[in-house]
Amino acid sequence: MPDTFNRKDLLGIEDLSVEEIVKILGSAASFREVAERDIKKVPTLRGKTIINLFYEPSTRTRTSFEIAAKRMSADAINIAVASSSIKKGETLKDTALNLEAMSPDCIVVRHGSSGTPQMLARYLKCSVINAGDGLHEHPSQALLDMLTVSNRLGGIEKLDGLRILIVGDVAHSRVARSNILGFSKMGAHVTVCGPPTMIPVGIEHLGCDVNHDMTAAVKDADVVMMLRLQLERQAAGLFPSPREYAKLYGLDSLKLKRAKKDVIILHPGPINRGLEISPEVADGPWSLILEQVANGLAVRMALFYLLLGGVKDGISNANKSLNPDGVRLLNLR
Amino acid sequence: MPDTFNRKDLLGIEDLSVEEIVKILGSAASFREVAERDIKKVPTLRGKTIINLFYEPSTRTRTSFEIAAKRMSADAINIAVASSSIKKGETLKDTALNLEAMSPDCIVVRHGSSGTPQMLARYLKCSVINAGDGLHEHPSQALLDMLTVSNRLGGIEKLDGLRILIVGDVAHSRVARSNILGFSKMGAHVTVCGPPTMIPVGIEHLGCDVNHDMTAAVKDADVVMMLRLQLERQAAGLFPSPREYAKLYGLDSLKLKRAKKDVIILHPGPINRGLEISPEVADGPWSLILEQVANGLAVRMALFYLLLGGVKDGISNANKSLNPDGVRLLNLR
Amino acid sequence: MPDTFNRKDLLGIEDLSVEEIVKILGSAASFREVAERDIKKVPTLRGKTIINLFYEPSTRTRTSFEIAAKRMSADAINIAVASSSIKKGETLKDTALNLEAMSPDCIVVRHGSSGTPQMLARYLKCSVINAGDGLHEHPSQALLDMLTVSNRLGGIEKLDGLRILIVGDVAHSRVARSNILGFSKMGAHVTVCGPPTMIPVGIEHLGCDVNHDMTAAVKDADVVMMLRLQLERQAAGLFPSPREYAKLYGLDSLKLKRAKKDVIILHPGPINRGLEISPEVADGPWSLILEQVANGLAVRMALFYLLLGGVKDGISNANKSLNPDGVRLLNLR
Repeated sequence: MPDTFNRKDLLGIEDLSVEEIVKILGSAASFREVAERDIKKVPTLRGKTIINLFYEPSTRTRTSFEIAAKRMSADAINIAVASSSIKKGETLKDTALNLEAMSPDCIVVRHGSSGTPQMLARYLKCSVINAGDGLHEHPSQALLDMLTVSNRLGGIEKLDGLRILIVGDVAHSRVARSNILGFSKMGAHVTVCGPPTMIPVGIEHLGCDVNHDMTAAVKDADVVMMLRLQLERQAAGLFPSPREYAKLYGLDSLKLKRAKKDVIILHPGPINRGLEISPEVADGPWSLILEQVANGLAVRMALFYLLLGGVKDGISNANKSLNPDGVRLLNLR
Repeated sequence: MPDTFNRKDLLGIEDLSVEEIVKILGSAASFREVAERDIKKVPTLRGKTIINLFYEPSTRTRTSFEIAAKRMSADAINIAVASSSIKKGETLKDTALNLEAMSPDCIVVRHGSSGTPQMLARYLKCSVINAGDGLHEHPSQALLDMLTVSNRLGGIEKLDGLRILIVGDVAHSRVARSNILGFSKMGAHVTVCGPPTMIPVGIEHLGCDVNHDMTAAVKDADVVMMLRLQLERQAAGLFPSPREYAKLYGLDSLKLKRAKKDVIILHPGPINRGLEISPEVADGPWSLILEQVANGLAVRMALFYLLLGGVKDGISNANKSLNPDGVRLLNLR
Repeated sequence: MPDTFNRKDLLGIEDLSVEEIVKILGSAASFREVAERDIKKVPTLRGKTIINLFYEPSTRTRTSFEIAAKRMSADAINIAVASSSIKKGETLKDTALNLEAMSPDCIVVRHGSSGTPQMLARYLKCSVINAGDGLHEHPSQALLDMLTVSNRLGGIEKLDGLRILIVGDVAHSRVARSNILGFSKMGAHVTVCGPPTMIPVGIEHLGCDVNHDMTAAVKDADVVMMLRLQLERQAAGLFPSPREYAKLYGLDSLKLKRAKKDVIILHPGPINRGLEISPEVADGPWSLILEQVANGLAVRMALFYLLLGGVKDGISNANKSLNPDGVRLLNLR
């Protein structure tokens, strides 16, 4: 595996190589340790400016990126573009070029339209990280999910051959899309499950299977990833009633009984208790939901590190010191 | 007095001992000096993460906690949970555990429901500070009020035997509640005053007197604390008209004439000029309203210091160095 | 030119002397270089607290001030006073004094009412920077515009005798007002242009000419500054239709053909493509719109430096070291 990470941007799982995924997860594993220190801060990105440009409201993902940036000693600037600037009618390109003129080092962007981060990245010399674009991708989520599973199983190579079941509104989930792509790349076998209204026709082209019978599908799975039912958004009208949805596609202890006894339960959060996941499952020993959150922070620190860490002349200095202990050397004292 | 401060959380005045209050106020007095420096920053909490989790809008209190955190060199993250995340239907416990997974050192929480900080504290390994919960408590406000009075009178022991008059909508005031508890603990005698609609039946059980005649009550008071009339919230319907309220329960120069000539006037802000307090009183020499704001910053720095300062294995290192000069030694150079 | 900058506040271009403008622009030119460093941070304002107090929504200007503050190592606190605190009925004076009690070093204020920063400055011991007040002034914008022109032309003395054309809704533009005052002070000759509904009667008293025929006016101009048409605000009703406005007062390649071949195009942003400026002009080589943004950051860093840099006893230390290389000496290592 070549010791390089020469990307400017992190736009999606689709264009990442296996080697790059391995590198990101390896770096993230090192950053997990920073969160356990008494002084949770490394000086790596001192003097760097990271802009969180969120066109959709998000507490959770924005907070994760913001804490990650600050723990790397970067300056983090939050821009919530609810309606104000959009209302002003500026084009996305102009917004991008105006931000670029303030010489940021990275723009983390979430936008309701698929392809926005890609478009920004084309116009910007600085790094762009996709924090969720429409129904397209949410790559840092997939990376943290892969990290969570590989940490639990004791190594990233364990993803190879694993059986992943993704359940819910796959059609409207950028989380599902990025995970199908990511786990497949790592050699896992992905099955998606949900009512027919929530499974896009032709999803198999992404490299996954479809199974509408959750009770059957859960049996073979090593990992069950429950998607959040976006009651406030797309889900309305896609199923008869929440109770029926919970019965057929919610993960409860009844369905869990049919699963392997060491099955891993994931959920990108926030969870709807009693809807797509029952409380006893969410809080049970199979659930790695909180591990996912902690790993999210580590993955975002790793992304900042790999994309921005000592970049000069377009070539990342990060490469030089990127060994398993590289990050640990960046201590404060 | 034992040299210890072994709390994880600051949830209310009710569960603080006199010794703990003395310790907080003593520490806060030291931090007052930081605000007068040219470089208003101490490195004490470098690498710590403090999250301001505000479920109610607040400019003033949030700003005070944020500045306090930054002057201690901590990373401060603001989360304003107006409607977004609540709308998403996540339980408070899940929100807590998700935040905990990002390994913050302290969560400062304001919430419209009484008991929220207590509930969070139970689930969280990190420190929780109550920045106001429903109609229950607002402990940092009471601490800054006690600090303001004791600073003016020349010592915390001067609170003993003092007569405190709290005027206004006591029934809907967490500020009143925390102050009744706090000043009483320190040996002061508290009287509450307001129209019957604003004084809860049985308030005497908290250890205070009730007097509905403000003109009479103001005579004996060493301290008059005027509460803000929450016109935009609870106050509507509790009194006939603002003019009548101002006449009966507003503090104006007429009523002030009956007070002791060195009476201390407090108000938690923001003030309604001409309603609960007249301009000449608010701006007069008896008023310590702006001192309260400055002391608020110092109290919040002290709370961060005592709760987070070098905590290891659940035992605070802060204890070791907590002497009157302890804080001053934490200079930048 | 005396080597002094003894102002507490930056409230408007109107009360700045030519020497002060020269000093600010000279300092800003030095700060441009910080944005091109690998570590974009100087320790100059470490331990200083800068509050961005925005009563009007603003992504762009607030972000510029926030990044400027953080690159100077100051603590930046954002307060967006949409409706919350105003609703609470606190007077501006009380807001000012309450903020002052938290001992900030500078308050950057934007407000919909003209004169607000001036009023705040009178009550506050700390510095106040006007980030836009009503229809009155937006001095940092005019300073960055002057810096942009003088940088392009190779020296601030080149502003003398220059012909500036300002086109658009001059009547509702604080940007126009500050620029008329600023460029005139530096010896330039300013002409304003727009439909009669958008040019205030008597504007000539500010020292500028009026020309309602843009096609004619553009011929002599060395600089054409297009104002943003505030469609969402004042502009409604002031002209028959966007199409007609664009035809008569929009800067397109047709009108540009009549201009000097080295004309400079400015726009404060955000631009309405195809309305007041056509895409080929906005993106063409004459346009310095993105230079304006970059210079905005530098001007704001310079303002913080000159107003706050090492102030002691009301006398600025900044004076001592203010030579062309002064800023460069403030390196991190």
